[in-house]
Amino acid sequence: MKVHGYGATAAKKDLVPVTFERPDPQAGEIGFKVTHCGVCHSDVHQVNDDWGNTVFPSVPGHEIIGRVTSVGAGVTKFKVGDHIGVGCMVNSCQTCEHCQSDEEQYCIGPKGATLTYNGPTKPDGTNTYGGYTTHMVVREEFAITIPAGLEPEYGGPIMCAGVTTYSPMKHWNLQKGQTLGVAGIGGLGHMAVQLGRALGAKVIAFTGHESKRADILKLGADEVVVTSDEDAMTEHAMSVDLMINTIPYPFDPAPFISVMKKNSTIVIVGNFISIPEFVPADLVFNRIQIAGSLIGGVKDTQEVVDLCAKHGIRPQIKMIKMEEINEVMATLKENSADHEFRHVIDMESMHAQVDGGKAKAESIEQPVRGEVVGA
Amino acid sequence: MKVHGYGATAAKKDLVPVTFERPDPQAGEIGFKVTHCGVCHSDVHQVNDDWGNTVFPSVPGHEIIGRVTSVGAGVTKFKVGDHIGVGCMVNSCQTCEHCQSDEEQYCIGPKGATLTYNGPTKPDGTNTYGGYTTHMVVREEFAITIPAGLEPEYGGPIMCAGVTTYSPMKHWNLQKGQTLGVAGIGGLGHMAVQLGRALGAKVIAFTGHESKRADILKLGADEVVVTSDEDAMTEHAMSVDLMINTIPYPFDPAPFISVMKKNSTIVIVGNFISIPEFVPADLVFNRIQIAGSLIGGVKDTQEVVDLCAKHGIRPQIKMIKMEEINEVMATLKENSADHEFRHVIDMESMHAQVDGGKAKAESIEQPVRGEVVGA
Repeated sequence: MKVHGYGATAAKKDLVPVTFERPDPQAGEIGFKVTHCGVCHSDVHQVNDDWGNTVFPSVPGHEIIGRVTSVGAGVTKFKVGDHIGVGCMVNSCQTCEHCQSDEEQYCIGPKGATLTYNGPTKPDGTNTYGGYTTHMVVREEFAITIPAGLEPEYGGPIMCAGVTTYSPMKHWNLQKGQTLGVAGIGGLGHMAVQLGRALGAKVIAFTGHESKRADILKLGADEVVVTSDEDAMTEHAMSVDLMINTIPYPFDPAPFISVMKKNSTIVIVGNFISIPEFVPADLVFNRIQIAGSLIGGVKDTQEVVDLCAKHGIRPQIKMIKMEEINEVMATLKENSADHEFRHVIDMESMHAQVDGGKAKAESIEQPVRGEVVGA
Repeated sequence: MKVHGYGATAAKKDLVPVTFERPDPQAGEIGFKVTHCGVCHSDVHQVNDDWGNTVFPSVPGHEIIGRVTSVGAGVTKFKVGDHIGVGCMVNSCQTCEHCQSDEEQYCIGPKGATLTYNGPTKPDGTNTYGGYTTHMVVREEFAITIPAGLEPEYGGPIMCAGVTTYSPMKHWNLQKGQTLGVAGIGGLGHMAVQLGRALGAKVIAFTGHESKRADILKLGADEVVVTSDEDAMTEHAMSVDLMINTIPYPFDPAPFISVMKKNSTIVIVGNFISIPEFVPADLVFNRIQIAGSLIGGVKDTQEVVDLCAKHGIRPQIKMIKMEEINEVMATLKENSADHEFRHVIDMESMHAQVDGGKAKAESIEQPVRGEVVGA
């Protein structure tokens, strides 16, 4: 099928209208019309080639919501008209120990997990294109059911920011009545606060900004601690069972270690850059762990979408049109750490461009979509 | 009872003969004659006041073996003549969640765990005296049975270096057939290699010293990797399920992270000083944890002693006389990282001094021994 979208043809250039062919759904695959796509900060890094691994042309988008338009042979979970979602992955080997444990994001198969866009790029340099497009195709196993109780425009960020904070709560076994710390209350953190409450934890939000206190309390946090307030930090010494640390830049771990109970875990989900030097004595004396965690598997993604539907948990979003994407990305570049809402592209704006014949699109090569693995 | 020993009356001074009264065993307590006491590197740090928390006079020793000479009312596990051991703790609250989980070292009771010497020092400044003494008294719950299959002189280091590496293997659930990494092959590491093998793991030893290869292989390591050999490190990328890192000085964690499998844990047991800056990306992408771990509880200590007896696992030791202690400590100060054996004091040398009337001992105040807690 002919597809229109927005993509970058080189690093640090504006996204431009592009058009390409996507192979029609094969056995086990679903075709769908994209209705919404969230703008993740990763999208900015990727089209900017900040991580040095972008394969151009790059068509971003991994917070995708749509309606099924066709299904391939053997598809049983979905039918035409269903609301579905696609998060950060579209395939994996589905046979390794991690895939078999519903953690496809840690796939150790020949290609690892196939990312929704810019993947797989190793070893053959093939590419995938994401959700800044009119239509997509995905393997049934990687499609998420969007339940009736969840307005579709909210679904995208749940499958990224939501599952990234939910997956470690599951993995490190957050229990009702335990204390969850959430450090950094932006796109990831504001989901973590709500999800922790829904799981029955007491939630302490750690923020650098006193100005955010009222909003964070509205999200349902039991307490807000401003990290620069040493007295408040001391009052909360050894009080946290599990911390989801979403801070997306290098931070001194010492004050966060000081609020952790014995035998507890700090999970880093936002900082890939640097942990500055620190004294590990408290790790030893109190058996504290510092861990990382990457997004979440398909099963956890479905669970967190269902949990949000059930508990009225919603990301804070701002709807934009497709043609506003470059402006929005420029804003995101300027102020990376501290956004209070997620931009979501109303893809009707893209469909309108195409239907109106206004899209002067550059034709780009056909993408793969993960069928290179396990086929 | 009147007790003789060796203690330091001030920081950085030689240990001198001391004498003091220990209260006779009360209900639930055991009195015993000390036959052997290991010299832990902590003893050097403590009498040197390297950690700034030493209460003088300080009488070290927490790798203690002896024979029971008397038992208080209600003691059921031990009788006069039994070989027993005492490790790093002599008491704890015995009621908090950690004590109830057989992890008294993480006691969160009013005083925390009572260390065998130099504890409890908070909040009342009382002190305990350790095993560099002719006789000791210990609560029954903190005495270890030394089985017939274990020569007493080997028991002390097992209760410190042994349990410090065994406890994390238990806690992080090392399974038969999994790969254990041991980094730093000194006093702790040479026990970890043997214990890992006894638990059925494949053991890869990571050392900075090519010269140690043959000796490490003799201990039972399946492979030895010299950490400065980048090719060897690359060959072992993502191969380790659990790493016990015993390196006692600051080390760059990056090369060690690179050899860890997804979803694995590096446990720091030797470095309280500093973790230099590192890039946490692989923690996130591979869900790797960096944790600390402190000695082990009484149950694990008994288990590791029994395991060593059963499997012929022995620390490498060198017997010394009590009067050689200052000379040995001077050697330990010079070369902290890299000892291939543990010094063990043959306490008959101390008993001979006392019996021969040669000990010109300085009289010091009576110690506590943990009866301040939960009495």
